[in-house]
Amino acid sequence: MEHIDLLFIHAYLLTMQGEGVGFIEDGAVAVRGNLIADTGTTKDLLEQYTADRVIDASGKVIMPGLIDAHIHTGDALIRGVSQDIMNWMQHGMWPFTNVLRKDTDAVMKGSMVNIIEALKAGTTTFCDFDSPMTEIVQNHIKAGTRARVAEMVNEMPKENKSKVGELYTFDPEQGEKKLQRNIDLIRKYNGAENGRITCMLGPQGADMCSQEMLLRIKALAEEFDTSIHMHVAQGDREINQMVKRYGKRTIQYLDELGMLNERLIAVHLTEATDEETEYLASKGAGMVLCSGSIGIIDGIVPPSAAFLRKSSRLALGSDQAPGNNCSNMFNEMKFTAILNKCKAKDPTVYPAWKVLRMATIESAKTIGLGHEIGSLEKGKKADLIMINMSDPALCPVILVPVRNIVPNLVYSAHGNEVEMSVIDGRIIMEDRKVLTVNEEEAVCEAQKAAERIAAQAAVIFEDMKDTPLMKMMERGEL
Amino acid sequence: MEHIDLLFIHAYLLTMQGEGVGFIEDGAVAVRGNLIADTGTTKDLLEQYTADRVIDASGKVIMPGLIDAHIHTGDALIRGVSQDIMNWMQHGMWPFTNVLRKDTDAVMKGSMVNIIEALKAGTTTFCDFDSPMTEIVQNHIKAGTRARVAEMVNEMPKENKSKVGELYTFDPEQGEKKLQRNIDLIRKYNGAENGRITCMLGPQGADMCSQEMLLRIKALAEEFDTSIHMHVAQGDREINQMVKRYGKRTIQYLDELGMLNERLIAVHLTEATDEETEYLASKGAGMVLCSGSIGIIDGIVPPSAAFLRKSSRLALGSDQAPGNNCSNMFNEMKFTAILNKCKAKDPTVYPAWKVLRMATIESAKTIGLGHEIGSLEKGKKADLIMINMSDPALCPVILVPVRNIVPNLVYSAHGNEVEMSVIDGRIIMEDRKVLTVNEEEAVCEAQKAAERIAAQAAVIFEDMKDTPLMKMMERGEL
Repeated sequence: MEHIDLLFIHAYLLTMQGEGVGFIEDGAVAVRGNLIADTGTTKDLLEQYTADRVIDASGKVIMPGLIDAHIHTGDALIRGVSQDIMNWMQHGMWPFTNVLRKDTDAVMKGSMVNIIEALKAGTTTFCDFDSPMTEIVQNHIKAGTRARVAEMVNEMPKENKSKVGELYTFDPEQGEKKLQRNIDLIRKYNGAENGRITCMLGPQGADMCSQEMLLRIKALAEEFDTSIHMHVAQGDREINQMVKRYGKRTIQYLDELGMLNERLIAVHLTEATDEETEYLASKGAGMVLCSGSIGIIDGIVPPSAAFLRKSSRLALGSDQAPGNNCSNMFNEMKFTAILNKCKAKDPTVYPAWKVLRMATIESAKTIGLGHEIGSLEKGKKADLIMINMSDPALCPVILVPVRNIVPNLVYSAHGNEVEMSVIDGRIIMEDRKVLTVNEEEAVCEAQKAAERIAAQAAVIFEDMKDTPLMKMMERGEL
Repeated sequence: MEHIDLLFIHAYLLTMQGEGVGFIEDGAVAVRGNLIADTGTTKDLLEQYTADRVIDASGKVIMPGLIDAHIHTGDALIRGVSQDIMNWMQHGMWPFTNVLRKDTDAVMKGSMVNIIEALKAGTTTFCDFDSPMTEIVQNHIKAGTRARVAEMVNEMPKENKSKVGELYTFDPEQGEKKLQRNIDLIRKYNGAENGRITCMLGPQGADMCSQEMLLRIKALAEEFDTSIHMHVAQGDREINQMVKRYGKRTIQYLDELGMLNERLIAVHLTEATDEETEYLASKGAGMVLCSGSIGIIDGIVPPSAAFLRKSSRLALGSDQAPGNNCSNMFNEMKFTAILNKCKAKDPTVYPAWKVLRMATIESAKTIGLGHEIGSLEKGKKADLIMINMSDPALCPVILVPVRNIVPNLVYSAHGNEVEMSVIDGRIIMEDRKVLTVNEEEAVCEAQKAAERIAAQAAVIFEDMKDTPLMKMMERGEL
């Protein structure tokens, strides 16, 4: 008998090994240190292991922790201030972010609540794309979450006042500072916390960086042997900038710079054509699909179906709170399935099992962590969640003739059914209580910071009385 | 000073009065017996009322309880057994329902869990469309929920074995029995429980009832002065039956029978054209939109936008658990907004405030209860919910310059943020504990009943090895 730290028994186990969901009916998972020591049937593992703690998971699902492959936790403080309008960035986001971005404390407070929100909904890994990341990463270190992070690098001026349709002016000095922060981040935190924190390069978009900057980032990604996490064809706004500035669309431009390859994690592809998307996929790049966010902001279902024709490296992301407005991977899974069924007018596409893979094993591969997470498999990092199938929204469990567990997880779970989260072998949430951070305090501090930011944004909105959100306020629609 | 039963103070109040959301910042609601005695500011109401119980709703939203305008609670026991396939009814539902419908105890156990699920997600009124409703209505009586119910009437044979594409055979004897049950239901329960239970006529669909039956139902609706709750153009299956049997599509057929009027609550309209939908709306009928269910089952976004061009009597419904798979009106609101934004390719349509109205005041008008529920207004029934805005998914609350409460309720809430539900003046849920029913027992009993049903369905599936769900089981996708 081998002695280990944690042994889960009697679970409905979804290992996500193989091509499907890797179901084991009376399943068990053994955890030693920060790694999965074994998976199998309860009977087999009880014969091989004794453990410091044995957790009876009867009536519960155990599966890999969910991976949010694209999130801006630093924007969460302004959750819900910009949706249901055209040009949401100029007419809603920017007046708030111009204030928020000068107040790192407020950014941090919002980020922490966002992390707690997602964690309580089963997310264990965060691809956090934000600024200043050397600060925000401290939240992940504190919360105990797995994070793959990038500093958001652009050459936009400090106060963004571009009007709709105008070509952005670049500020190379700002760009230089931001790139330096990304480099510092990688040097300091890549592999930190026993490997729980890893770092990427993070150009915000081809429209917001000069060509020189993108080429430097490309070289740095090779030097540091890491990924480039980047918004690609993220809106008509971006495409317009690209065509005005370079006379070509984003994907052709990136191809000419030699940036379409395995290192690229292309986020959104909102405005990419099917042909562009297939081409990008065929060159080896990964894609992150943010169904909720792009649905709200643009009314668009991105061309992930075209991507899937050439590659399986498709991941899901929750994007950001001012325009999604939640960071909940169960929400993303259900939206991804239904929006794509409706786009294809075909209920057989994006079946539950496939979408569950996009939030676990395929996501891990997309963000470059396929060797470490995404499935429950001997030798991988011990990131797992336990889900209460006795919740009225998930009950009853039927095993034969048709097993209903995976469809109900994807189409009915809301996140609050997740009872326990283990990250890197450590129990981070138990009985829905986050053990690493004081939730009540975090919420209270975020509220205070939000009131400070809102008061300053109110001054800016004084000059924006004719914008759609102000009209909605006037009409009593908010 | 007037003495009342319940006084809520210091709430973010959404009365849903007027044309918008009727927001009052430091709002209060006074409840006397089963009615709303008053709404206003906390200051005003504290000057006028003393109460048996004063509830401090600081940091919480109080709003009308949500209305699920179309739900089959009796199907909930087979949650999640049929999705991601074509012909979900023939290849997934019917083998289960043929067994389930012979076991009223199992139907009841599933229904109760479904009611608890929805109640815990803020639903206070259920348009329950099922059979045997004289039984199922007992669950609503026990749970304390408001229910507007109809017996599902059709002339289908007891064992439904129709193959895809075949014209159904009718069994008038079965039809007669079912109609009689609907009449008995109305006679016995319309207005029961101090008016909390009301009854409608419930023909299952124009394809499943003879013309004679529909004309009798039309006459009965006039006799009892109530609504007709009916699936209309609910799938290509229905339209095919109608064209084969009568040489015309459903809406033209119903028009010729004189059934397109204010009494009709037309559910789904999945396969209705924009022109048919506008015509139906212009004749005064209401529409129920089931975004989640129809998205999963058919990959279709029904033509509610066309409906709204002629009428505002549009309500939302969760439909049924084997193919939605949840009964959660927050889920329906978010789906309705995003699916329609994506259908229109326009992020400004179906804004949060409008969708919130579709789940409250417009829903009430659609189902014929606009005079009683749907808004918090003096003299209406006291059906309200209290929502915790300190939940990490709803935090922070911003009041100026852009109020974020309504967008976050529609786009970020998942249902578990609802802390308290009051129905007909009675607290039915408090601190997320349902006070009228033992949740744990209900879940346990539903699980037992499901295992019984599944074992019998397994025998039927023995002859269905080639159907898509069986293939998915084989491939380890479930």
